[in-house]
Amino acid sequence: MCDTCGCGATGRDHQHQVEHREIELEEKVLAKNDRLAERNRGMFEAMNVLAVNLVSSPGSGKTTLLERTITDLKSEMTIGVIEGDQQTDRDAKRIEATGVNVEQINTLDACHLDAHMIRHSLSKFSLAELDVLFIENVGNLICPGAFDLGEDFRVVVLSITEGEDKPLKYPGIFLDSQLVLLNKMDLAGFLEVDTDQCLSFVNRVNPTSQTLSVSAKTGEGMALWYDWLRQKVAKKNER
Amino acid sequence: MCDTCGCGATGRDHQHQVEHREIELEEKVLAKNDRLAERNRGMFEAMNVLAVNLVSSPGSGKTTLLERTITDLKSEMTIGVIEGDQQTDRDAKRIEATGVNVEQINTLDACHLDAHMIRHSLSKFSLAELDVLFIENVGNLICPGAFDLGEDFRVVVLSITEGEDKPLKYPGIFLDSQLVLLNKMDLAGFLEVDTDQCLSFVNRVNPTSQTLSVSAKTGEGMALWYDWLRQKVAKKNER
Repeated sequence: MCDTCGCGATGRDHQHQVEHREIELEEKVLAKNDRLAERNRGMFEAMNVLAVNLVSSPGSGKTTLLERTITDLKSEMTIGVIEGDQQTDRDAKRIEATGVNVEQINTLDACHLDAHMIRHSLSKFSLAELDVLFIENVGNLICPGAFDLGEDFRVVVLSITEGEDKPLKYPGIFLDSQLVLLNKMDLAGFLEVDTDQCLSFVNRVNPTSQTLSVSAKTGEGMALWYDWLRQKVAKKNER
Repeated sequence: MCDTCGCGATGRDHQHQVEHREIELEEKVLAKNDRLAERNRGMFEAMNVLAVNLVSSPGSGKTTLLERTITDLKSEMTIGVIEGDQQTDRDAKRIEATGVNVEQINTLDACHLDAHMIRHSLSKFSLAELDVLFIENVGNLICPGAFDLGEDFRVVVLSITEGEDKPLKYPGIFLDSQLVLLNKMDLAGFLEVDTDQCLSFVNRVNPTSQTLSVSAKTGEGMALWYDWLRQKVAKKNER
């Protein structure tokens, strides 16, 4: 028996009991988030906006990927961006320089974006004019995975510098994502990393996830990512 | 006025009010954690164990850093390791191969280690025989920063592949750390990253933090990290 809380349980059971109340509260927060996410989803549906939630560790290259994507596609589709960061508007300024509309959300103590924050940011966009809304989440490979924002697709950006085993060690965020972009492929020659094994780990965690290997820096592999986006935008506008 | 919750506030104020109840609950969880952390701290003090909490993004090289550190120092100090991971015991197995005692904590849904988890793991070590206990936290540059484990020092491992601006974008975890190890310096020649600016950003956020540039892979700069550890172990044993 653990004398810390006197709950009478031991080992993992004990840990579970201690966490029980915390988990109940979390479930309430998440249930509220999920309802607001559905409202966002309804807005995206009504306005034919493809919403893409980009999640990753810090420094995986999400902003560089967006800069290049916007530059290459802005002549054929109207793009908006919501930038989530704990602090600073550095990423928003980089995106603004590409000439598209961008809204910054500073989450301060919070480790993820939530549906309520997105809802407030949406009022700053002319949704009727948008084809794609990219939501760059806070750099965190765990917490953003629990918060539905109402997006159509969640895309994980995984830098090969992080090592091949991240899908196994952080499975939650890969489990409910539809595409993994394995980024920084330009560095493959300088690292001891097995990128094929990394992709096989993604599919072990989530057999339905698509995967693309890219370099947002050199442009390698980006054409397939653009095709993916074009296809999803076309499908969104079909109905 | 926001029609989502009808609170009557707008903008950032509105967000604050919505988050208010959530924050109150978080504060209770943290207050409980802080008390248990002090109990751990008391145990480390009583047993002259230097406890070092290693925090970072996923894939910054914490485990590689520990492998090399243990291999190079295990003849002069007795080392134990607590491995925190959301899933898998991959890192624990790597550490076990160095010949030291290691305990794995799988946090499952949790995004950080907490003082209670550490307390339970401590029972698996012979603290009287340990000089240093390394606690490798879950890879996450936000949440572990809020949870005191009772450690003597918190050390941030920051990979230069993440870009120079991470201290500004994720200031919380740097604010209460005493040392930043700028890792993967062997890749500096292949990246467009300004490592001097990165170190200046660390000191802008936390002027009292020490910084060392290292490569856990090649061993570059590791001697100064070892000196830092030797000095802290000696000081712990002085009293």
